[in-house]
Amino acid sequence: MNMYDIIYKKREGEALSREEIEFFVSGYTDGSIPDYQASALLMAIFFQKMDRKETYELTKAMKHSGDVVDLSGIKGVKVDKHSTGGVGDKTTLVVGPLAAACGVPIAKMSGRGLGFTGGTVDKMESIPGFRTTLEAEEFINLVNRVGLSVIGQTAHIAPADKKLYALRDVTATVDDLSLITSSVMSKKLASGSDAIVLDVKCGNGAFMERFGDACELGELMVEIGKADGKKTIAVVTDMSQPLGLAVGNSLEVIEAIETLKGKGPKDITELALHLASHMIYVGEKAASPEEGYRLAKEALESGAALKKLAAFIKGQGGDPNVIDDYSLFPQASCRTEIPAAADGYVCGIEARSIGLASQHSGAGRATKEDRIDLAAGIVLHKKVGDAVKKGELLATVYGNDQTRTDKGAQEAAAAFHIQDQKPEETVLIKKVIQ
Amino acid sequence: MNMYDIIYKKREGEALSREEIEFFVSGYTDGSIPDYQASALLMAIFFQKMDRKETYELTKAMKHSGDVVDLSGIKGVKVDKHSTGGVGDKTTLVVGPLAAACGVPIAKMSGRGLGFTGGTVDKMESIPGFRTTLEAEEFINLVNRVGLSVIGQTAHIAPADKKLYALRDVTATVDDLSLITSSVMSKKLASGSDAIVLDVKCGNGAFMERFGDACELGELMVEIGKADGKKTIAVVTDMSQPLGLAVGNSLEVIEAIETLKGKGPKDITELALHLASHMIYVGEKAASPEEGYRLAKEALESGAALKKLAAFIKGQGGDPNVIDDYSLFPQASCRTEIPAAADGYVCGIEARSIGLASQHSGAGRATKEDRIDLAAGIVLHKKVGDAVKKGELLATVYGNDQTRTDKGAQEAAAAFHIQDQKPEETVLIKKVIQ
Repeated sequence: MNMYDIIYKKREGEALSREEIEFFVSGYTDGSIPDYQASALLMAIFFQKMDRKETYELTKAMKHSGDVVDLSGIKGVKVDKHSTGGVGDKTTLVVGPLAAACGVPIAKMSGRGLGFTGGTVDKMESIPGFRTTLEAEEFINLVNRVGLSVIGQTAHIAPADKKLYALRDVTATVDDLSLITSSVMSKKLASGSDAIVLDVKCGNGAFMERFGDACELGELMVEIGKADGKKTIAVVTDMSQPLGLAVGNSLEVIEAIETLKGKGPKDITELALHLASHMIYVGEKAASPEEGYRLAKEALESGAALKKLAAFIKGQGGDPNVIDDYSLFPQASCRTEIPAAADGYVCGIEARSIGLASQHSGAGRATKEDRIDLAAGIVLHKKVGDAVKKGELLATVYGNDQTRTDKGAQEAAAAFHIQDQKPEETVLIKKVIQ
Repeated sequence: MNMYDIIYKKREGEALSREEIEFFVSGYTDGSIPDYQASALLMAIFFQKMDRKETYELTKAMKHSGDVVDLSGIKGVKVDKHSTGGVGDKTTLVVGPLAAACGVPIAKMSGRGLGFTGGTVDKMESIPGFRTTLEAEEFINLVNRVGLSVIGQTAHIAPADKKLYALRDVTATVDDLSLITSSVMSKKLASGSDAIVLDVKCGNGAFMERFGDACELGELMVEIGKADGKKTIAVVTDMSQPLGLAVGNSLEVIEAIETLKGKGPKDITELALHLASHMIYVGEKAASPEEGYRLAKEALESGAALKKLAAFIKGQGGDPNVIDDYSLFPQASCRTEIPAAADGYVCGIEARSIGLASQHSGAGRATKEDRIDLAAGIVLHKKVGDAVKKGELLATVYGNDQTRTDKGAQEAAAAFHIQDQKPEETVLIKKVIQ
């Protein structure tokens, strides 16, 4: 078996066998297959596609390229949650406590972010003292004791994905359904949970801009998860405008806390309850997603989820006082306000542009080496459908470098579209795939 | 401008601009663009193709990636000849002397071969003393004095092609029309001749197996040559069976000498006269290819071309006595004969299999580091259409390692197909494109 023949076979549109896919993944991971052959194969896959079986074999080979986490020390049905990524997506910080408060053990590994803001792990680090690196034993004990722990993903989880993703990122081969699926699912399957709820974002701030593509991705991921013996549900949700009002790191943690206090924006509250309802259902703490929803709502309204958040923060060494005193978070020294240029209704907020504005204000990394400004980001004051008067504030950009916040504000201002007519309401939960 | 955007643009099927193509070629040549991005682009080109303008810009950028040879010191219209490569293709050694004998100056740079046999330069080195590395001045003086010189191509001719070809070779991106064209034509255009005659091989021993593909390649190469201001003609010729009877290095030189003595196989004689006729025509020594053909035939029959060969060999330090004494060539110590398994007619000789058999007998390189056995190779005793009796010899494999000649013989035997019916005659010269 050799890599040339594998590239040629895929180029000619043939399906690769399990052995060929394993040869590629293990050879690329150990360095015996060079980058230039891997990128040629990736581009051939982009054009010729992989079928379901190939995608599953690729996912499995990538899963087994490193450690497969053993969570058997945790009692109950462990549930993982994954979002394909969007702007202002702080749902993990809300659904984790919600599901855990309903008795579902959450032992989550989360990545750092490249792009609009940091990842969940970066966001958590805006809480003073919070540790995102725990030994396996501590991690498992914490989930058994508190019901929830979130740690940084180690390099030993699906190293093939780490290497392949870095290559795809510089060779224009990211946006292929099978490659996205294998990348996400290999990590999820290696992370050891028993069930997975996927939040597939759809709209201009997401990987998948079109509804049909997002559904296809969701279906494929659910199929791969099930093939590997995990209960898997995907929820296709709107990402045509940022989720909630806050985009950034500490800004998003604060919004997550507000949401658990029952004072969060409607969209993030609703999405979190929905995702939690499915997590509680696949975690076997409810007989149906509907019952799961009721339980999640109770956990929110009773303050049980907020208490769970406090225990989670404390369990990982963070200061739980942040919940009542937001001044304990890193503070921004600069801000730039964005006033509306005209009267009317907000008919669109381009999520992608807001995301880029957030990144440029300092909240996100352009390269792995960049340092994140945890205080930087954007707070929206208006969402799609809101009425606005000329001069009224649309958003405020925060940071610690006036030039950067000004630049961010300029980009964010261009993301807002104002019209005379009130736009139709967008549907937040578009589809559930199971 | 950055390489990611260029890959993405081509992947989406857009035409690249001159600036983008130049950016890619110069960046890849100087090492600032890594192999993995280049191979992703090559695969995207394979799928999305390049249009005529892009192909020309690519060819020009590759031509100018190194030295462009100045042949202005040579009097007359300098004519180059190129074959896309086949099995038993020793035409350069015949058409060079033919055209030169008719007054057309031939200043040719030729590559070494990877594959079935060595290249022209390797073949010439089977003549004792023959030097294929000459200083520019000596090369030009020799053409002015003798009318013909063939030297090895230096690394400074189209270095972009050298690097790109090596990459294409290991990433399954060789067989694309635009990439083949730019590879061939960048070297030809950098080699400084005024006119070019291309022999585009067609059949199972060639790059292009199908007639339609070979014509498309010929048309594109002619168009690119003309766009660069060179008179260019392409002749599409048969490569469904080996050309002539000899496949190897010294074996082919001997067959070329025989041909110039008027005793060569019919196909190689006919092909050489045809190619020479077009060279004489574009070299402005004949008013038409028909007149060129008549002049070439005269040069063959009068022995003028054979004399030209002797002068050429002597001019480059070789021993011209080889022309009359083939024992001066490197000799094979082993041979394996291939008898016919049945009575009938030879209805097919798979050129590719004969080529591989030749390579395995020692005549060709599998990798750049391999040493060629100049005496090794195959001599066919039968060609397509010949009647054969069971036990009669079909071919003999020569070499200096019995295991290797036996292996070669086994492969060569499988290349012969014998049937009861006499097959239809194949057409050697299939099309002329100008």
